[in-house]
Amino acid sequence: NHAIICGYGRTGSRVVAELQAAGLDFVIIDNSEEVIARLEERGIACVHGDATKEESLAAANIDSADSLVATLETDPDNLYLTLTASGLRPGLRIIARVNDPESTDKFRKAGARRVVSPVASGANQIAQLITRPAMVDLVELVTRKKSIALKVVEHPLEETSEMIGKTLAEARVRQTLGCMVIAIKHLDGDTAFDPGPNTRLQLGDILVGIHQPENSA
Amino acid sequence: NHAIICGYGRTGSRVVAELQAAGLDFVIIDNSEEVIARLEERGIACVHGDATKEESLAAANIDSADSLVATLETDPDNLYLTLTASGLRPGLRIIARVNDPESTDKFRKAGARRVVSPVASGANQIAQLITRPAMVDLVELVTRKKSIALKVVEHPLEETSEMIGKTLAEARVRQTLGCMVIAIKHLDGDTAFDPGPNTRLQLGDILVGIHQPENSA
Ligand SMILES: [Ca+2]
Ligand SMILES: [Ca+2]
Repeated sequence: NHAIICGYGRTGSRVVAELQAAGLDFVIIDNSEEVIARLEERGIACVHGDATKEESLAAANIDSADSLVATLETDPDNLYLTLTASGLRPGLRIIARVNDPESTDKFRKAGARRVVSPVASGANQIAQLITRPAMVDLVELVTRKKSIALKVVEHPLEETSEMIGKTLAEARVRQTLGCMVIAIKHLDGDTAFDPGPNTRLQLGDILVGIHQPENSA
Repeated sequence: NHAIICGYGRTGSRVVAELQAAGLDFVIIDNSEEVIARLEERGIACVHGDATKEESLAAANIDSADSLVATLETDPDNLYLTLTASGLRPGLRIIARVNDPESTDKFRKAGARRVVSPVASGANQIAQLITRPAMVDLVELVTRKKSIALKVVEHPLEETSEMIGKTLAEARVRQTLGCMVIAIKHLDGDTAFDPGPNTRLQLGDILVGIHQPENSA
């Protein structure tokens, strides 16, 4: 289970740096000999080829991959890649970058699980800085590494869970899971935010908790 | 107190749509006659001119603005605008978009409070989808409008606050403020996440809370 990064350009190279920092496995596909030579020098797993071709995806072991990032230069190439990859591996988690945010739907239809538009992300970030500055602070509080390291955990209540049928207080969730439960996602898709201590836990509930890892501060 | 949006292109137009949705006041500056004609038809406050010039900023009432968004086409134009605007109004909250993420420092030095790089935002979003999927879920839970509307509140403890000197439990924060306190930012910059009920509140503390507005679900 590795990630395949297709296209080592401005976006792809940044994604790779984050994956390296997180210690995750990945293989890069790029069609530039120069790019591949530099990656090989650095000892990074890579495939020289056209990522829209099945043979390149096979060389990157798409069969055992759990995610694929489509960051080729153009939207048509990324769409073609998305179709090829989802055809080869229907369950694959494909994350596609689009240059034109209007083409998001096309990518969804082609099998992309997530579609990221840098233009839309950037504009949204700017808008939130104006409309919801406190929200931005929270998100930074939660995601920024420097100030406070928080971890989000999702704890699904499976059949064998001893918490089922108990209230949050009875289940002593904070002590058992070591986290602050901020929401419960129910099986029907509803989410209960800040559930009270008397909330009764059901099979299929997913507890959404946040905690601060011990070796951070 | 309005926002000034400089440049109504791909980014600027998206920012404006969000400000409209939030019901906030803004004035757009753009140098295209065509763009201005269309905005005027829609009854949107705008100034035709070069946003890097003091006269355009004055026409957009920079004196009474509380924020300015720099989304002109090129980084040099946005940098020039940032310098001009921060010279005219030293305290103004300037949010600049950069095309080249490497130039962030230049913008900081020029007086931009926040610098947003769409390429870096997009890449960061993709990386988080792979490295911290649960974190992305939390952020979406907190920011997405559809599934659950949460509001973040920051409650600074000022001299007159009756909470100072009390513990969180004694202050009955949840009842008083109607929110779930997830963190306390202290005056010295430290942030205490998930503070316990016996945490004693001090002058200058900022309580970071989240709550769900009553008329949403
Ligand atoms: Ca790229
Ligand atoms: Ca723009």
